[in-house]
Amino acid sequence: MNYVGVDIGGKNIKMGIVDDFGRVLSSMSYKTEQERGYDAVLLEIISNIGVLCEQAGIYTDDISGIGIGVPGICNSRAGLVMSCSTLNWKGVELAGDVTNLTGKPCKVCNDANCAALGEQRFGSGRNYKNLVYITLGTGIGSGIILDGKLFEGLGCAGAEAGHMGISVDGEKCACGNRGCWETFASAKAFVRQTREAVRKNPDGILAEVCKDGISGKSAFIAARKGDKVAASLIERYIDYVTYGLIGLTNILHPQAFIIGGGIANEGAALTLPVKKKLNEYIDNNGFYPYVDVVSAKLGESAEFMGAAALVM
Amino acid sequence: MNYVGVDIGGKNIKMGIVDDFGRVLSSMSYKTEQERGYDAVLLEIISNIGVLCEQAGIYTDDISGIGIGVPGICNSRAGLVMSCSTLNWKGVELAGDVTNLTGKPCKVCNDANCAALGEQRFGSGRNYKNLVYITLGTGIGSGIILDGKLFEGLGCAGAEAGHMGISVDGEKCACGNRGCWETFASAKAFVRQTREAVRKNPDGILAEVCKDGISGKSAFIAARKGDKVAASLIERYIDYVTYGLIGLTNILHPQAFIIGGGIANEGAALTLPVKKKLNEYIDNNGFYPYVDVVSAKLGESAEFMGAAALVM
Repeated sequence: MNYVGVDIGGKNIKMGIVDDFGRVLSSMSYKTEQERGYDAVLLEIISNIGVLCEQAGIYTDDISGIGIGVPGICNSRAGLVMSCSTLNWKGVELAGDVTNLTGKPCKVCNDANCAALGEQRFGSGRNYKNLVYITLGTGIGSGIILDGKLFEGLGCAGAEAGHMGISVDGEKCACGNRGCWETFASAKAFVRQTREAVRKNPDGILAEVCKDGISGKSAFIAARKGDKVAASLIERYIDYVTYGLIGLTNILHPQAFIIGGGIANEGAALTLPVKKKLNEYIDNNGFYPYVDVVSAKLGESAEFMGAAALVM
Repeated sequence: MNYVGVDIGGKNIKMGIVDDFGRVLSSMSYKTEQERGYDAVLLEIISNIGVLCEQAGIYTDDISGIGIGVPGICNSRAGLVMSCSTLNWKGVELAGDVTNLTGKPCKVCNDANCAALGEQRFGSGRNYKNLVYITLGTGIGSGIILDGKLFEGLGCAGAEAGHMGISVDGEKCACGNRGCWETFASAKAFVRQTREAVRKNPDGILAEVCKDGISGKSAFIAARKGDKVAASLIERYIDYVTYGLIGLTNILHPQAFIIGGGIANEGAALTLPVKKKLNEYIDNNGFYPYVDVVSAKLGESAEFMGAAALVM
């Protein structure tokens, strides 16, 4: 059977037709024109379902359901987007509206949860029924899969691991907590840490790499050129990432962590040391099983593929 | 139907016969003579099942199963006690041995997990299908109930929330992690904090209360007498407890936290401010449901009653 998956991002909307085996029959990406309002965004998505069907050479009747990922607070059981500041949506009945307009079942869910489901069904998590997906970006998004199913908590309010506190005397986060994990271990935090290192070491290789702009990759590039400042910066960042994973392991002990987000493109340079550190910790307790740490595999398709999996 | 629940503690073994409605038909408590070795402890438990049946006025044939809580690392699926330093047991096939000797189904599980199950079935958690039980003692024990069932994680290694790190630059814990929650928020940590406060304020009410010994209750007693040092000590302790609960909420968002351990006897003096702080945090995000925080109800019976529930 065929399903439509939609990933509504702040900048772009990605959508595609996915079958039960995770094959993408057709896909597209276009600018999110949220300034035109909810109805316009919704109608464009629905008209694009027809375009995708044509590209895939199937009829719209062949679509069994529509799943949508949204970068905000969703109540997936009720089909509501409770709040999405990126899109300026509040309390919209997205799933119901889509079903009314298309006659097809529709589910909505937070985008990180969709990505977790996508990776578990079709990506790096295929061998695991219990995993935590972590995306290192502006913040830290997360999705939890238990026994093969998305775990969302009461009111779909769980799986916000980025706001687990790791510094009880730390700085206030916008969420109201202090010392949130994401203020140490997100890609944005790593860029900030890199900027500080450049300021303190203005003549090093890292500063040279960063002269046209700083990204989450800068330190990795400088470290590969032999820069020691960059290497120790990465080491500390890996410690921050691992520290949060140790917390999650002590609570959930999943089979695996899947690491996504731009910084995950560093692949083994990031995941191998994290995996080593995490399992050295687990090893202290001789009886607990190892936990795998792997990079996400589906890249920017994870969200829409996972969204499609919501209705499979 | 009737079930035997056993709670093997370092000091005492508590056991009882419990029915499906959580009624305790008979119970007993006696010294754990672990120095006599595993076999002796095991045989005494089994012979005491007969005593309990006699007390309850039932036949041993009326017992449908035996559940056992152990203060150590168990693999409940395999029926093994992997490691229990308190009892000096390692890799013992406790469930299998009990079944061989009695002919009855037997399950073993970590004692904090048993207490969580006990409170959820028969205690403060009866209205909740999703809860986290926290016991504030020497460390912080925890048990997680999701969808009415114990959640234990891979290899039954999860639900060790006391070792979630809340201070990334904190001191090393015996577990190998740094800044574990229990080093801030266990009853033992609170006693240490109280001792420090007494040292700094040797002439206050708190010092007077503590002159015959310091316990988790000392600061609460002094605060009720109007001592400001004790009040601010409690305030900080409540902040440490809440900080961990916020982390757990961001991951699991349960319906309720059940707080057990000796310090839970303070009741509302502990749970009300924790509940207020936690839900003020949740309120920052206008769309997430409140989480209840309540004291455990079953006291020292939680473990054996929950152990019995393992086989119900």
